[in-house]
Amino acid sequence: MSLLKEFERRDLGEIGRDLHDFAASLYPICRSITGSGIRRTLAMIQDRIPLRIHEVPTGTPVFDWNVPKEWNIRDAYIKAPDGRRVVDFQQCNLHVMNYSIPVHATIPLNEIRPHLFTIPDHPDWIPYRTSYYKEDWGFCLSHNQLAELKDADYEVCIDSTLEDGQLTYGECYVAGRSSDEVLISCHACHPSLANDNLSGLAVATFLAEHLSGRDLHYSYRFLFIPGTIGAITWLAQNREASERIRHGLVLTCIGDAGGFHYKKSRRGNAEIDRAVGCVLRDCGESSEILNFSPYGYDERQYCSPGFNLPVGCLMRSVWGTFPEYHTSADNLDFIQPAQLARSLRLCASIFDVLEGNQSYLNQNPYCEPQLGRRNLYRSTGGDSISIEIHARFWVLNLSDGEHSLLDIAERSGMPFAAIHDAAELLRENGLLKGIVGVEKAP
Amino acid sequence: MSLLKEFERRDLGEIGRDLHDFAASLYPICRSITGSGIRRTLAMIQDRIPLRIHEVPTGTPVFDWNVPKEWNIRDAYIKAPDGRRVVDFQQCNLHVMNYSIPVHATIPLNEIRPHLFTIPDHPDWIPYRTSYYKEDWGFCLSHNQLAELKDADYEVCIDSTLEDGQLTYGECYVAGRSSDEVLISCHACHPSLANDNLSGLAVATFLAEHLSGRDLHYSYRFLFIPGTIGAITWLAQNREASERIRHGLVLTCIGDAGGFHYKKSRRGNAEIDRAVGCVLRDCGESSEILNFSPYGYDERQYCSPGFNLPVGCLMRSVWGTFPEYHTSADNLDFIQPAQLARSLRLCASIFDVLEGNQSYLNQNPYCEPQLGRRNLYRSTGGDSISIEIHARFWVLNLSDGEHSLLDIAERSGMPFAAIHDAAELLRENGLLKGIVGVEKAP
Amino acid sequence: MSLLKEFERRDLGEIGRDLHDFAASLYPICRSITGSGIRRTLAMIQDRIPLRIHEVPTGTPVFDWNVPKEWNIRDAYIKAPDGRRVVDFQQCNLHVMNYSIPVHATIPLNEIRPHLFTIPDHPDWIPYRTSYYKEDWGFCLSHNQLAELKDADYEVCIDSTLEDGQLTYGECYVAGRSSDEVLISCHACHPSLANDNLSGLAVATFLAEHLSGRDLHYSYRFLFIPGTIGAITWLAQNREASERIRHGLVLTCIGDAGGFHYKKSRRGNAEIDRAVGCVLRDCGESSEILNFSPYGYDERQYCSPGFNLPVGCLMRSVWGTFPEYHTSADNLDFIQPAQLARSLRLCASIFDVLEGNQSYLNQNPYCEPQLGRRNLYRSTGGDSISIEIHARFWVLNLSDGEHSLLDIAERSGMPFAAIHDAAELLRENGLLKGIVGVEKAP
Repeated sequence: MSLLKEFERRDLGEIGRDLHDFAASLYPICRSITGSGIRRTLAMIQDRIPLRIHEVPTGTPVFDWNVPKEWNIRDAYIKAPDGRRVVDFQQCNLHVMNYSIPVHATIPLNEIRPHLFTIPDHPDWIPYRTSYYKEDWGFCLSHNQLAELKDADYEVCIDSTLEDGQLTYGECYVAGRSSDEVLISCHACHPSLANDNLSGLAVATFLAEHLSGRDLHYSYRFLFIPGTIGAITWLAQNREASERIRHGLVLTCIGDAGGFHYKKSRRGNAEIDRAVGCVLRDCGESSEILNFSPYGYDERQYCSPGFNLPVGCLMRSVWGTFPEYHTSADNLDFIQPAQLARSLRLCASIFDVLEGNQSYLNQNPYCEPQLGRRNLYRSTGGDSISIEIHARFWVLNLSDGEHSLLDIAERSGMPFAAIHDAAELLRENGLLKGIVGVEKAP
Repeated sequence: MSLLKEFERRDLGEIGRDLHDFAASLYPICRSITGSGIRRTLAMIQDRIPLRIHEVPTGTPVFDWNVPKEWNIRDAYIKAPDGRRVVDFQQCNLHVMNYSIPVHATIPLNEIRPHLFTIPDHPDWIPYRTSYYKEDWGFCLSHNQLAELKDADYEVCIDSTLEDGQLTYGECYVAGRSSDEVLISCHACHPSLANDNLSGLAVATFLAEHLSGRDLHYSYRFLFIPGTIGAITWLAQNREASERIRHGLVLTCIGDAGGFHYKKSRRGNAEIDRAVGCVLRDCGESSEILNFSPYGYDERQYCSPGFNLPVGCLMRSVWGTFPEYHTSADNLDFIQPAQLARSLRLCASIFDVLEGNQSYLNQNPYCEPQLGRRNLYRSTGGDSISIEIHARFWVLNLSDGEHSLLDIAERSGMPFAAIHDAAELLRENGLLKGIVGVEKAP
Repeated sequence: MSLLKEFERRDLGEIGRDLHDFAASLYPICRSITGSGIRRTLAMIQDRIPLRIHEVPTGTPVFDWNVPKEWNIRDAYIKAPDGRRVVDFQQCNLHVMNYSIPVHATIPLNEIRPHLFTIPDHPDWIPYRTSYYKEDWGFCLSHNQLAELKDADYEVCIDSTLEDGQLTYGECYVAGRSSDEVLISCHACHPSLANDNLSGLAVATFLAEHLSGRDLHYSYRFLFIPGTIGAITWLAQNREASERIRHGLVLTCIGDAGGFHYKKSRRGNAEIDRAVGCVLRDCGESSEILNFSPYGYDERQYCSPGFNLPVGCLMRSVWGTFPEYHTSADNLDFIQPAQLARSLRLCASIFDVLEGNQSYLNQNPYCEPQLGRRNLYRSTGGDSISIEIHARFWVLNLSDGEHSLLDIAERSGMPFAAIHDAAELLRENGLLKGIVGVEKAP
């Protein structure tokens, strides 16, 4: 049975609440590209799905890069002369610039200012900043907070460590009948940001859970990795596995109220691009297909020219285009249970296309077969025919060995599920045969 | 001389009246996919053109089908207790469901109701229904008629026979210089329906008449056949002839007041598709090109994947999209002399393209030849040039052996006739040569 | 340094005034396709650039044509009975139909009328007429002038000669490192017409001046020729050189206030077509790309099927579409210094694309190289990246040996200059290598 159909028998509202609850449980953790935050995150994902955790030592060369030092943080604050913490990491982990080196000093506000980041246009919001590859320290705060600071000497403290250690990532492999793989990749390196991080993590975790134990054609590999350096590290250490990737999706920003956006792979017309296009066309939500560009999430690495993998990026609102992006306003209210659930279901529909897409041969290619005597047609002439019968005609007409079911769905304008169901029915009735050597069905 | 030009010398109004008169003479006959109705129809066509009549016995296997029993009907009615015929086949042959098995009984209205068909949205119209492949009986009547029937016992009588016999179809072959064929196919199995049947029969008959005795490149095969089973039967029994079909048109619903619609062949870019597209572009009537779909008229069979013939379907209003379709309102008022005549002329233009389309070689390919000294150019500079001279430049520029005249008409946006005339003139002046081996001209 | 960048360091206003002054100095000359007018024009161009003057004798066969007789004119007028010149060549050289044979007679107005040309819709303007290949004589005058002529005998005098002589054209060759050529062609045969002639002559002359002495990849050939017969003559006598033409532009009507129009070469997707398309897309002025058609300027000859050279035509307003075309209103007010200068700059941008377009190989094709440690990236995460950094990502991503910089500019939607600068920077940093054997850089 198709993944989508099984979804339709479950309570989507409940699935949405579960997804949101899971995101909420991950929300408080101060993640970064290395360190205990991502480790704890992966452990919580591991509670739900069989996750293999990998640790790669600092300094390991990965293509043009080296695995960076491991960063950990216990506390950080700016303390006013009266002893009050005016900026406090314990209240919000965005307050410290991610990867800040340790600092502890009492210095006048003027000297602190170059290390302070705010968003004047949204004076209540705290920005999210990082400095992974240039050693520096900084605090992020709301513009209102900054405005209240008077000239004085403040105690600044960042109780962090930046030392040789490990880069940590998680990998969940759901084996199918074929060793050909579908890659699902999401970054797990952002601290308390909900849409840009947790939405992807939650949906990917639930997808892996949903696929486990099923009879699948493809094997599915889920990566929970730090952005950029994680994808580079995985690719550097898994050249062989990367060659088995037939289709892939980067999942991110998939929980907000916006319509879907799909950024195509560098190839532009890969099967994953067409599959997502077909599913979005019929999904009933607003959606837009974007051309590939070499900036964004980890599709940057998967689609680098040496790999050129068929990996696209599925989003709702596009990163960088909504004001809440990379601010404290990307919080648990910004992602919604219903949207998370519908994103999950959409991914299932996409996998249905990948799993079900193959080519058949019409066994009666000369004229139409007589559907009526097989009870595959209406009996009284004069009325229009149903969508189901239309789909049968399309499948019969184009099953010449040169058209896949996805081709037929595209050309007919009919949902893939309708085309796939028609093909199954025709196959059961002996009117179609799968092309030998390429059958996906068990 | 071109077919179109000859048309332009005749009175289109008169041609339209002749077409309508011919349709009117066929209108009263109760046609079906077999039986005396189609036989009589073919005999009347035979009065105008040399038609070869074929009879294929019931039970003959044709691909996945068998030729059905032959159906004939003499009378049918529903008689009220007072002896009055409340539904009477003699008044309108649509009243009986086509292919109804014989029945004669007096039964309460309640038991008759499942066999009655009406159109509640158009309470004055009688629907057209068939049940070819499921043995059944029924009556079609206006919704108003039905409303007046009171609960009582009625005498229902269908005096029909459904017995072993023949499937009958007609074929008119107009020989050209080449054995390559143009197929024109229309169904002849609908009873008193004007646009959906008679318009195509009339236009095809007049086309065959118009082509007879001409010096033609292609041979033209006109089929007057029962829908679906007729096309299947012809294809099953004429595999060799089917391989000679280079272009084809199904003609139907070609007499109503709507603009033209052309449904492309399965190939989508066959020469016939491009020829019709070019002619419609310049025909001065509204028109729309539709993509192929595997449901419709007999293009379904010609375009089945085993044949995949370059056969499209030319219509005015598209079947199933106008309310009169398959009802008593598709009557002789619904088709119009002027539209029939313009449809006929359009077909002639299409044949002109097929007949005249070939490639030439510019004999002076280096720079333009000096048209002026051949009196093929205006003499005084400064003004714009005429369409005729424009067409000469286009033909000269693209006659490199890789562009046909149809290519040139498409690329230049100029009517095919203008391009063809220019090519003829240039050829007569020694500036072009037909490519050896592919010349269509006699 | 790019041609465009050097332009940006100069005063565009001053360049515009120089261009207009040069056009103004050429304006009074009565040019024709042969004779002293074009000779004097070429001599004035020769004052600025090294121009080789060619003279081809009358009667020389050039493909399907022969070089015509040489035409020269000293004076022409229509004199009223009172001795007043009512039409006077000395006031405006458009008054005489170009290539008029000599005539001197006193005849009644009625007999003169067939030789008089006016523009009733623009009663103040004098039309421009020619009769190169049909021996005839005529006068062009304003419709108002004609209206004032009373019936009487007038002395008509055209003091011209049409005798065996020469066809004259000029050629300026700017040698680059490669013998591959870029052709720039403009006609020099129109008398006092500014946009349709002088704008192209001025821009081409200044372009040749601008290119001289530079280190260039391509060699540039500038042709200043009589329209049609000049191009035919050059092609007939330079078959070998014509085979070295890799890209070409016909320049005409390039000084008026309209937006740019580029008519593509017959090939439709030649590199010159794409280069101009890319430059126009980003030029900040309105512009339109037109498909090739076989009528127009000398692209007609360069794009004849035997040559099929990649030569397009760059214009502002399209010849024949503006009312001033081929009238006395196409005067020095109709062309504007600013437009001439921007046309010149646009041509420089086009040459920049041709000169700079080549393919590179990303030396780190597996994942992105770490731009940060090479100071090619911003240092703090969280903000968007600059256009310059975007361009670097595009160049790295698509430099797989199958995409040229022009491909990348087209696909990215970024200006070619930004893409080219990024490629240079990446090459200097060792991240790109030019593909051996196709490098254009010195």
